[in-house]
Amino acid sequence: MPEVELQDAAARTEIVQAEGHLVDSRLLNAILDKVIERQSKFEVLRFDLGRTNEEFSSLELKVTAPDTGTLRRLLEELMPLGCYARPTQDAALRPADADGVVPDDFYSTTNHRTLVRCGGRWLPVAGQRMDAVIVVRDGQAACLKLRDVVRGDPVVCGVAGIRVSPEFQERDRLGFAFMTNDVSSERRVEVSASKVVAMLRQVKADGGRIAFVAGPVVVHSGGGEYFGELIRRGYVDVVLAGNALAVHDVEHALFGTSLGVDLDAGVTREEGHRNHLRAINTVNRAGGLRSAVERGVLRSGVMYELVTRDIPYVLAGSIRDDGPLVDTEMDLVAAQEQYARALEGVSMVVMLSTMLHSIGVGNMLASHVRTVCVDINPAVVTKLSDRGSAQAVGIVTDVGLFLHQLATQLRAREAELAAPAAQAAGGGGADR
Amino acid sequence: MPEVELQDAAARTEIVQAEGHLVDSRLLNAILDKVIERQSKFEVLRFDLGRTNEEFSSLELKVTAPDTGTLRRLLEELMPLGCYARPTQDAALRPADADGVVPDDFYSTTNHRTLVRCGGRWLPVAGQRMDAVIVVRDGQAACLKLRDVVRGDPVVCGVAGIRVSPEFQERDRLGFAFMTNDVSSERRVEVSASKVVAMLRQVKADGGRIAFVAGPVVVHSGGGEYFGELIRRGYVDVVLAGNALAVHDVEHALFGTSLGVDLDAGVTREEGHRNHLRAINTVNRAGGLRSAVERGVLRSGVMYELVTRDIPYVLAGSIRDDGPLVDTEMDLVAAQEQYARALEGVSMVVMLSTMLHSIGVGNMLASHVRTVCVDINPAVVTKLSDRGSAQAVGIVTDVGLFLHQLATQLRAREAELAAPAAQAAGGGGADR
Amino acid sequence: MPEVELQDAAARTEIVQAEGHLVDSRLLNAILDKVIERQSKFEVLRFDLGRTNEEFSSLELKVTAPDTGTLRRLLEELMPLGCYARPTQDAALRPADADGVVPDDFYSTTNHRTLVRCGGRWLPVAGQRMDAVIVVRDGQAACLKLRDVVRGDPVVCGVAGIRVSPEFQERDRLGFAFMTNDVSSERRVEVSASKVVAMLRQVKADGGRIAFVAGPVVVHSGGGEYFGELIRRGYVDVVLAGNALAVHDVEHALFGTSLGVDLDAGVTREEGHRNHLRAINTVNRAGGLRSAVERGVLRSGVMYELVTRDIPYVLAGSIRDDGPLVDTEMDLVAAQEQYARALEGVSMVVMLSTMLHSIGVGNMLASHVRTVCVDINPAVVTKLSDRGSAQAVGIVTDVGLFLHQLATQLRAREAELAAPAAQAAGGGGADR
Amino acid sequence: MPEVELQDAAARTEIVQAEGHLVDSRLLNAILDKVIERQSKFEVLRFDLGRTNEEFSSLELKVTAPDTGTLRRLLEELMPLGCYARPTQDAALRPADADGVVPDDFYSTTNHRTLVRCGGRWLPVAGQRMDAVIVVRDGQAACLKLRDVVRGDPVVCGVAGIRVSPEFQERDRLGFAFMTNDVSSERRVEVSASKVVAMLRQVKADGGRIAFVAGPVVVHSGGGEYFGELIRRGYVDVVLAGNALAVHDVEHALFGTSLGVDLDAGVTREEGHRNHLRAINTVNRAGGLRSAVERGVLRSGVMYELVTRDIPYVLAGSIRDDGPLVDTEMDLVAAQEQYARALEGVSMVVMLSTMLHSIGVGNMLASHVRTVCVDINPAVVTKLSDRGSAQAVGIVTDVGLFLHQLATQLRAREAELAAPAAQAAGGGGADR
Repeated sequence: MPEVELQDAAARTEIVQAEGHLVDSRLLNAILDKVIERQSKFEVLRFDLGRTNEEFSSLELKVTAPDTGTLRRLLEELMPLGCYARPTQDAALRPADADGVVPDDFYSTTNHRTLVRCGGRWLPVAGQRMDAVIVVRDGQAACLKLRDVVRGDPVVCGVAGIRVSPEFQERDRLGFAFMTNDVSSERRVEVSASKVVAMLRQVKADGGRIAFVAGPVVVHSGGGEYFGELIRRGYVDVVLAGNALAVHDVEHALFGTSLGVDLDAGVTREEGHRNHLRAINTVNRAGGLRSAVERGVLRSGVMYELVTRDIPYVLAGSIRDDGPLVDTEMDLVAAQEQYARALEGVSMVVMLSTMLHSIGVGNMLASHVRTVCVDINPAVVTKLSDRGSAQAVGIVTDVGLFLHQLATQLRAREAELAAPAAQAAGGGGADR
Repeated sequence: MPEVELQDAAARTEIVQAEGHLVDSRLLNAILDKVIERQSKFEVLRFDLGRTNEEFSSLELKVTAPDTGTLRRLLEELMPLGCYARPTQDAALRPADADGVVPDDFYSTTNHRTLVRCGGRWLPVAGQRMDAVIVVRDGQAACLKLRDVVRGDPVVCGVAGIRVSPEFQERDRLGFAFMTNDVSSERRVEVSASKVVAMLRQVKADGGRIAFVAGPVVVHSGGGEYFGELIRRGYVDVVLAGNALAVHDVEHALFGTSLGVDLDAGVTREEGHRNHLRAINTVNRAGGLRSAVERGVLRSGVMYELVTRDIPYVLAGSIRDDGPLVDTEMDLVAAQEQYARALEGVSMVVMLSTMLHSIGVGNMLASHVRTVCVDINPAVVTKLSDRGSAQAVGIVTDVGLFLHQLATQLRAREAELAAPAAQAAGGGGADR
Repeated sequence: MPEVELQDAAARTEIVQAEGHLVDSRLLNAILDKVIERQSKFEVLRFDLGRTNEEFSSLELKVTAPDTGTLRRLLEELMPLGCYARPTQDAALRPADADGVVPDDFYSTTNHRTLVRCGGRWLPVAGQRMDAVIVVRDGQAACLKLRDVVRGDPVVCGVAGIRVSPEFQERDRLGFAFMTNDVSSERRVEVSASKVVAMLRQVKADGGRIAFVAGPVVVHSGGGEYFGELIRRGYVDVVLAGNALAVHDVEHALFGTSLGVDLDAGVTREEGHRNHLRAINTVNRAGGLRSAVERGVLRSGVMYELVTRDIPYVLAGSIRDDGPLVDTEMDLVAAQEQYARALEGVSMVVMLSTMLHSIGVGNMLASHVRTVCVDINPAVVTKLSDRGSAQAVGIVTDVGLFLHQLATQLRAREAELAAPAAQAAGGGGADR
Repeated sequence: MPEVELQDAAARTEIVQAEGHLVDSRLLNAILDKVIERQSKFEVLRFDLGRTNEEFSSLELKVTAPDTGTLRRLLEELMPLGCYARPTQDAALRPADADGVVPDDFYSTTNHRTLVRCGGRWLPVAGQRMDAVIVVRDGQAACLKLRDVVRGDPVVCGVAGIRVSPEFQERDRLGFAFMTNDVSSERRVEVSASKVVAMLRQVKADGGRIAFVAGPVVVHSGGGEYFGELIRRGYVDVVLAGNALAVHDVEHALFGTSLGVDLDAGVTREEGHRNHLRAINTVNRAGGLRSAVERGVLRSGVMYELVTRDIPYVLAGSIRDDGPLVDTEMDLVAAQEQYARALEGVSMVVMLSTMLHSIGVGNMLASHVRTVCVDINPAVVTKLSDRGSAQAVGIVTDVGLFLHQLATQLRAREAELAAPAAQAAGGGGADR
């Protein structure tokens, strides 16, 4: 191993600051861990712990790395944790050397709210998402996917002049935090469902939009009917899925089967697997889902409800698709753009049994969007809860039965709220 | 590799016969596979395929092994598949050389109905179970666990004079067979539940007994209430479990928590984990579960329902037990005997989220007992469905929600059956 | 329930025939089960069981359905099991009504070898795969994906004039069949690996081509190095993957990390996640993988080995892709076509930890292609083993350690084979 | 909901203190979360963050609960997090009212080091483990299982006079902390293995004892041979297991099979399942494992190595046991005591593919014992890593291949260390 070069201590030392809910969002911990992990040392110059649950804490920390290279990398890693050095300078902007190609030291984004300093002013970065670069054009900073960068675009490089505000995990709102701690199948799902119901209702009450990401298991497991009810009740503002969800849903609507399995009898049915292709053929003959609904060919199911209510959906293609339906976007660059556009302004995402599309969606979300991920496989839930959002909840359960719970509880809750009014209006007599 | 010794073909050849539903029970297949697997050859002397679904098939097969040792072992392996050689001789009986110790060539049982030939007569073997030995005393043949053999007991050895009747898988009864094919979480559980409901009702209508094997996840996942309803409705004739089921159930009944988690609020509660020990302390102070119920200390929950209805239960101890409750049998030899006794005459077993106790029970069952195994982990379901019963069904789902389904469907079904009577009584004419 | 219409028995009855290894391929069983499942009856007119393991069996069966509609559907379902009616007629050909749209009663293919009768001759169907339609043009029959059908194409409809030859499962070759029985993690992987090694060597000895389908876990789990060795030793003829495999592999080759985790130290590294994007940026600046290798930018790893040895690979895009690399095909219709083309003539496929691409590949394979599927998740292995090939083997294990086993065993086996020659040539003295 | 009773603020308020590595052990976080979770308020009177990684932090916190009952429960819950109130009083001691029965307000232990105040002095509690009670006899405080309490024993009740020292998670030692973060199968197991190798060597270098908890999968998966090598190399000081490990190991040693599967050929063997019972019969005839080794009946395998080297082992019975071996302790109270005794003084535990015995062991460990848990099922690893030890590491992989890695790396490491000496002795000196 090479010798560790001795360098002047001053050059290996920096003073950084951070403010916020540093303790309950576990940032303080992460900051100090990171310093140790990089074989560096810290000295706490000042730490004011918020005296109450509402007050911010603030930290001033001196870090000393074994060499200047490590210091630079350490500062780069502390930035997503909210640390910044003072006094600060403008962010370095360097031109992209070709379309889709940026300088080697480009700054790679997190999904947390970010500011870049240009001409002494802090510009908020638009379209925040992870694994993007930041381009500053006309005094506006925005996240761009690598492939969308155009030769000559001024790309933020290095780590100076960048401030990141990690989403602060809240301690008590809606009990969300208490759900986040563990991924276990040994939980009462009725309770988890009631919390998700509360969240859905809260988001709608606040005027927010809710996206659902749904895999075909929603249909196989008998959840289609309940998902349809959620749509009718107004809790679904956009659906992101793949070809398979729509095909299985249409197969079920037209023939009562899903991949040839009769969903009511549980047995494989006559003409079994062929129904899958017939569903595709039927929709494509009609010219697509919307037109199949309009012509009365498709009269029920998830896609029917979406079309009827003019709720936007995007079906992204994949290598395993049959057909596909003419509605499925097989150009994945276009599909990613449509997904991203559909997710604009969304404040809650429910992911139902599809790791593929859920990871795709997770990549596009800013960290303040709440995410609920439901799958019967704990490994999928763990993987998804670790990504995309600081406020992700994972629920390990049967997705069909879970949707049943959601629909039943929403129905009961709405009836409960409607009842007093009815009672008040109708006078007494509820007992008989 | 050693040379294969050439032996007189006659000594390496045997003619075996088998009758029954050889095709639909996959026995024909298994028999021929086994011959090939042992580097032997077969010649089909006669095969009459049952002309209809009801008729038996019958097979006469000449097998030739590479040597007499292989032939002997092959015949030994064909026996559990229903093959027997003619003309037959009496089974060899040899005395156990010590308590719990048998001759080296003892016959090790399967869980299929078995006959042994003694004095020219075929004796049915009592207490059929797998991994036992057969002892013939006073003209009675019976399965004995190795440890129950007494020095001098006449133990069946070798393979001559033994006939095994593998359970024939039925093609169509109650749709059971169609459920057995795959273990997948991508199924509509409402449909599986409706089949289990039909089975439960059928077994009770036939006067059969139903055993439930239940792990503590039944309580954690909120299924206790629904399990209690099954008990009250009369579908539970015996419960086999461990210390943990009872402790968690009592903890829930007394304090509303399970391992400190509030089952209604889904959050860890004040006094959390201590409730677990308090539950044990409270029951033990009362002198056990029965007495806790009698004294009014325990007023709800699974154990309360069982005690109140005088339904037998056995709690077997394990190395991970806290406490234990004074009701828990910590002597595992005694616990195995109590389990086995409780299972006598049972015709259906439902296994709920406990691999440990379910394997224990599976070991004790004859193959004609129907088994339904429910777990959220597909590996557990696969493992249990492969054992213990030729007619095992596996369902991969959330056990709490599954019990909810069972209780709801049983309730609806009983209401439905009760309704026409009511209608008939009340006149009306709902049909048009 | 509706009344079952009584119909003339003759119209509800058909005589079908089948030949082949009907017992060991479980077809006899499946045929009879299917008849019962459809509420129909069978009468065995003739069944000749092959007298030895090599001889075919043959069956003549009279089936009677409750009505003519059921009979038609039953015959349709018996066809993939090898049953056909005599005397036979030509297959019905009807023109596609629009591009990508076929008549409603189109015949939907299985992945088994198929013949269609046209002008009294039986034409073999080219490009056999599941879920396709059969088009007959210029006296040639071929599978076409729905989307590739052109208006006016003569499409095979109904079930008359079609013969399917289900792949007969072999009893003993290479022990393959014995591996297929169960998916369990409780197996000695060293032994499974040695069987896969024997298969790989056999296929190459027979001049066959081997495809690998590989997910990024191959790299995360440290298997890249061993996969590279398999490539160098000549056991990899084509690689089908996604963007992520290549990106992680390049990230590891350039920076030693995979998603920012240092594969040698197991810790997240400085500059962590950014390396992922840097890898993409670096390759894209070079103009793609091939050119990155040619310019000396990329000097090791899986993609390097493939490029250097001119082994074809296809990277299919997906909704979750970062970048992508310019080599990744984001048009999924094109990607599916490239996959299908790359799979032509392949006789063995090894699927490594990617459900998405493996299902895609499975859809494209004829049933005689052998498939080995390796994943640490038993649910994935079960799902993949149930598809795509009658001869699929599933192995539940760590893919990195499994590749280590494959490489080590192949190396040892080749050294073993080389050794005697060397010894013979060099004379004695090996010991020192 | 009931009205919250208003109480005098002073009675609902307490000042608590805590010292230690409050940030890196996540205690500060947990303390503040707990206050909020209980609908209480906190005010930070003082918080001194350790200025460097080595310095302790210290906290003085004023908590105000909505009522005195909640305050009492909150203080009870803050205690395991290291909080204590000042000035402090003696712990309350109250007599057990019957054998195995304690007062309702007994103090239930955690697995962290604990002190109780008696007569003004702080007594350390011996035999620390979770879910026990503390009895003070003759000026000595000790953990007792509930069942071991004798009528009249002075039992610590309430929460006053108790101090708990939660194990402080260390940031950097041996990289252990960095392994603890996630349970994922997408990791390079060679690296995890190398860290476990380093830990094993470190513990032995420090003179520590290492316990292994092993399930029968160790044998099924081919790991027995490598586990044997670990024993021979001196890394195994005690083995805790069940009947099945020993039976499968003996079956493999005597007949080459494990549950009838030939471990070298991977196929089910002639006489298959019977070997399992034969193994039990053979050992029991010999009078047990030790005597089977002494008489030359048992000549290889894990149990052989243990007996030969006089390494203690405990085999605990379970409800699913066949046999059992005469060595298996079927009285589970005795088995738990033997386990606990065997674990005395152990500083590291490796748990190999047995949830049952691992949970049992986890219950008995103080929190400073390091635990490594290896299983192919991520749910098992998650469950075990969450228990028993603040310093648990989970590794999701194939246990057979993992043991192969451990043995190979330990062998290489020891050869490497032996080599320089040899080189030095033999002259040479390639490097310099």
